Amino acid sequence: MFESLPPEVKVFEVGPRDGLQNEERFVPTADKVRLIEALAAAGLKHIEITSFVSPKWIPQLADGLAVAKSVNLPADVTASALVPNLKGYQSAREAGLKEIALFMSATETHSKKNINKSIDEALAALTEVAQAAHADGLKVRGYMSVVFVCPYEGPVDPQQVVRVVTRLMQAGIDELSLGDTIGAATPRQVVELVKLLARNVELEKMALHFHDTRGTALANVVAGLESGVRTFDSSAGGMGGCPYAPGAAGNLATEDLIYMLNGLGVKTGVDLDKLVDAGEIAQTIVERKLPGRYLQAALAGRAQANSRKAETANE
Amino acid sequence: MFESLPPEVKVFEVGPRDGLQNEERFVPTADKVRLIEALAAAGLKHIEITSFVSPKWIPQLADGLAVAKSVNLPADVTASALVPNLKGYQSAREAGLKEIALFMSATETHSKKNINKSIDEALAALTEVAQAAHADGLKVRGYMSVVFVCPYEGPVDPQQVVRVVTRLMQAGIDELSLGDTIGAATPRQVVELVKLLARNVELEKMALHFHDTRGTALANVVAGLESGVRTFDSSAGGMGGCPYAPGAAGNLATEDLIYMLNGLGVKTGVDLDKLVDAGEIAQTIVERKLPGRYLQAALAGRAQANSRKAETANE
Repeated sequence: MFESLPPEVKVFEVGPRDGLQNEERFVPTADKVRLIEALAAAGLKHIEITSFVSPKWIPQLADGLAVAKSVNLPADVTASALVPNLKGYQSAREAGLKEIALFMSATETHSKKNINKSIDEALAALTEVAQAAHADGLKVRGYMSVVFVCPYEGPVDPQQVVRVVTRLMQAGIDELSLGDTIGAATPRQVVELVKLLARNVELEKMALHFHDTRGTALANVVAGLESGVRTFDSSAGGMGGCPYAPGAAGNLATEDLIYMLNGLGVKTGVDLDKLVDAGEIAQTIVERKLPGRYLQAALAGRAQANSRKAETANE
Repeated sequence: MFESLPPEVKVFEVGPRDGLQNEERFVPTADKVRLIEALAAAGLKHIEITSFVSPKWIPQLADGLAVAKSVNLPADVTASALVPNLKGYQSAREAGLKEIALFMSATETHSKKNINKSIDEALAALTEVAQAAHADGLKVRGYMSVVFVCPYEGPVDPQQVVRVVTRLMQAGIDELSLGDTIGAATPRQVVELVKLLARNVELEKMALHFHDTRGTALANVVAGLESGVRTFDSSAGGMGGCPYAPGAAGNLATEDLIYMLNGLGVKTGVDLDKLVDAGEIAQTIVERKLPGRYLQAALAGRAQANSRKAETANE
């Protein structure tokens, strides 16, 4: 085990989009911008900053264009946004983004319930946007939801995932992010699915998007690393619960991911201490204690150190 | 990866002792008994039910003897208790337990701060108890704390762990539980330490005791499994925070462990649904939301199902 770990991996931060869209509170534009800039200051190079979905569906991100236009990022940081259709794509273009993300489901029922489209319809719409983006020279990321377990259909047949992924790649996808949308995957399933998909998709193009709903996210990252995957999605502080189990944890927390990768000797370019600063901002702006384990331990440690300093000052 | 997973592993439940001793609230004896019996009903076969440490140090478990005498367990369940000295051992004997657990630290500073004894002094006291227990035909488990990182000394030299473990085994230990006391370990360290220790200690005698303080507990279990370890400690609901970082998560939650092992196809004999019942009891009696991920997701799922039922009934 761990005999062929890569020297570095890519961490794709989804907090400002996938996190905030699932938080109850609408976070003011200026706070979103402050969070995104803090994430970049911590060394994250790939940040999904918002989505251009109708505010009727996702009011939390209704200010996507304002966020994208306001945020001030270093030249080596790629900001991307989730877009559902050509209209959303025009906003991404207007904002000057260099990368967009498209999404679809691995099961018919999730596709219908999530976006009211069959897989065929979703693929057709997505292909149109991917072609427009490529024509304009933008990079296209594709999210495939519920690749392990579907909240409606249950366990998903890996062969079904292969079929849909193959069609998604044909639509022109530069990076494929495989989503364990309800956080139900366990490590052996990860090894098996990656192995199966790797027959058709280059490992360099594959990303894994885990949720920590049942505590298995980092164990699944280990399985992904050992399987040759080199890109992992995560969300600052673990923002964005699980829409299918209100009150449960959702996205893998970026701090937990970076802490483990540091311990494995795998470089990410991220400064964990500055990342905790960003996580603290995230917690402040969503006005709730976030589920990220490392973040809570680090903030508890800081609080202890501060109270000791205060005691010393009072002596 | 996962080419030589065992058909089954042993799960050692520490919640009623390691969990409750770190909860702020004193849980009434009858509630402790109810929890322990619910854990056994879920299929756990090894439960550390209390400790016989002076109530001056651990008031939360001052009713150890009453708990041990009241609890009604199936014949195939082994109840054990932590004992610090011969006096505590006499209580364990009086309670009729068949197994006791002893503890010591891998570093001098942790040993001094935790029990005000040097490693030499701790080993001498522990050996005395181990010999008495063996003479009486009891099984002896040995906890070795801070085997990865010490809250006082920082990262612990694996060679230091080897030296102390070797002496501990000579004291007559039937099962060695290696504790990541502050939850700082990452999977590669686990692989390396187990490999090193396996030169002197049979893998069958080794247990791993992880804390989820930084989210890495299940990833570390994967590393332990792949290294040949077959016994894992955990605590119902993740009871018992981290004494070194108040507010952070502590023990690995038993439900998370069982969920992942189920997914890996490794048997434990535990019924996950009944385990959630026990976790719900744990949460009720400690009067706080416990950190276990699976427990929270399962309880959220049950709440949703109940509210749907109520809606249907009202129609």
